Amino acid sequence: MKIVMIGEAGNHRGRLEAALGPTQEIICLPREAASDPAWDAAIASDDAVISLRLRREKAPSFRLLHVPGAGLDGIDFEALAPETAVCNVFEHEIPIAEFVLGSLLNWEIRLDALRASMSPALWSDTYRNRVPHGELFGKTMGIVGFGRIGRAIATRAKAFGLRIVALDVLDPGDGLADRIVRPDQLGILLAEADYCIVTCPLLPSTRGMIGRDELAAMKPSAVLVNVSRAELVEQDALYEALAENRIGGAVLDVWYRYPLGADDQVAPSQFDFSALPNAVCTPHSSAWTSELPARRYGFIAANLGRLLRGEPLLNLVRPAAATLHA
Amino acid sequence: MKIVMIGEAGNHRGRLEAALGPTQEIICLPREAASDPAWDAAIASDDAVISLRLRREKAPSFRLLHVPGAGLDGIDFEALAPETAVCNVFEHEIPIAEFVLGSLLNWEIRLDALRASMSPALWSDTYRNRVPHGELFGKTMGIVGFGRIGRAIATRAKAFGLRIVALDVLDPGDGLADRIVRPDQLGILLAEADYCIVTCPLLPSTRGMIGRDELAAMKPSAVLVNVSRAELVEQDALYEALAENRIGGAVLDVWYRYPLGADDQVAPSQFDFSALPNAVCTPHSSAWTSELPARRYGFIAANLGRLLRGEPLLNLVRPAAATLHA
Repeated sequence: MKIVMIGEAGNHRGRLEAALGPTQEIICLPREAASDPAWDAAIASDDAVISLRLRREKAPSFRLLHVPGAGLDGIDFEALAPETAVCNVFEHEIPIAEFVLGSLLNWEIRLDALRASMSPALWSDTYRNRVPHGELFGKTMGIVGFGRIGRAIATRAKAFGLRIVALDVLDPGDGLADRIVRPDQLGILLAEADYCIVTCPLLPSTRGMIGRDELAAMKPSAVLVNVSRAELVEQDALYEALAENRIGGAVLDVWYRYPLGADDQVAPSQFDFSALPNAVCTPHSSAWTSELPARRYGFIAANLGRLLRGEPLLNLVRPAAATLHA
Repeated sequence: MKIVMIGEAGNHRGRLEAALGPTQEIICLPREAASDPAWDAAIASDDAVISLRLRREKAPSFRLLHVPGAGLDGIDFEALAPETAVCNVFEHEIPIAEFVLGSLLNWEIRLDALRASMSPALWSDTYRNRVPHGELFGKTMGIVGFGRIGRAIATRAKAFGLRIVALDVLDPGDGLADRIVRPDQLGILLAEADYCIVTCPLLPSTRGMIGRDELAAMKPSAVLVNVSRAELVEQDALYEALAENRIGGAVLDVWYRYPLGADDQVAPSQFDFSALPNAVCTPHSSAWTSELPARRYGFIAANLGRLLRGEPLLNLVRPAAATLHA
């Protein structure tokens, strides 16, 4: 078995080599190999392929497609040979949860304002006139979508003494949330939450799920945090609620428009959220850490080791047909 | 029994009234009543006194002195009548722990820089050139002093997947820390810690405990956080280590000089730490929250209810003599 890294995955070849040892054959193919059959001859039926994308009519036969991320929207499953298993990898729930808790703590503490108030000349008056800040403790966090990311946020939030109200189709029944509500009970979550965290996937049923009525159901002091997909929240309703201070504020890390090519210039929204004092806008960075690729490729290396030893694969999205009929 | 609130405590009279009901008699005495016997006639032997200070040769007899804070350095214990019990109140470990985790998350995520990188005009280039930030997950936190504050920090830090090395005279043996070291093993903690949090009290044995040698024992990337007392760390050695980038940075909330009166102007240190890019300097604000007084006076009200009902008092620093000999 050799390992075929396609496109951006090839940037992490060194990590796999370090984990698997120099005897493991690894080749890198260009980005085009994900969609153009011209490179198919380089892929053997015993190989494992690592690629974020695989788009074509019919892919060659190989043992495993390991997607080096969580999203599967770049993969044409119908093009894959039946004997190809598919795995993905997460790990981004860790930095996203850190980003959410860090944003909320900063919302309450306003560290940048505290820092700006300090200098040798300001100190005595600043100290005498200290302005109290806020706390997370005892407040309620609503989590819309209680999957891997929502649960990683809840695990950390519980340690701060936050009460968790989580919305999902299923109740995991493990007590991590203090209250679980169904999707048709979003109003309960919105009314109770001091912080409303949007972590559900974008689906036809969830697009625009937070609009004018839902924002009006939130507490006037509540903070909306979106680390999932912008289109879950209607941008005109959100801009209006923030500009008119009808909610406390928002932390927005995901956007309505992204640059697709290397040179195009688009705006992140039809509104300038970044000019609002109560909107903390960040450039889709919640999971963008130095540690994430190392952790993801460490997971992939371990999974390739399992494949080589004939052990069950982790994060199996689609088993190989042989496994299915075993 | 009536309740006597002296000095600053009187600002919170409304909170006690709300908690105890209108039938409970409460009086407020001026700040001077803490040191001047002229007001003693207003205090009866059945009363409870709430005051941060009580300094005099001989205090009148009363049932309970409830200090509305943790520090007991304002109380002359020898002046108290033997039948006077003393209680204090904490709760500041909650905002201090939130401040420490918030500071560390902000250290890794640099939310203000992310925010500054967002605008309609910047977005496309910012997105294409995102700079990865750091994570807490998997790093090691050293906690110097594993008391109430250190443990509140550890409880939250564990939820982020941080490894905890705590230094204290006693091993609580409850597994909250991954490793406990003794005070003579500070070097072990300093060598292992990515974040070194100073939370121990200032005593003759701890003054200047972190000096040139200890800073040199830290990792070059490590961050020192001081939320206890400035004098635990030698200011010249700390300034030098930060200015010469021999440690990663520092979060400093406590200072070497404080204004004592209403008008005097002092500098927080003989060095201008706030001008260093790797020092996050804040004005002794880690516990300065709107929620803290409400929580403290809620605790005091509950403790006064215990006294009225003859139940055991919480946070008893010194029992009444009658209890001692009961």
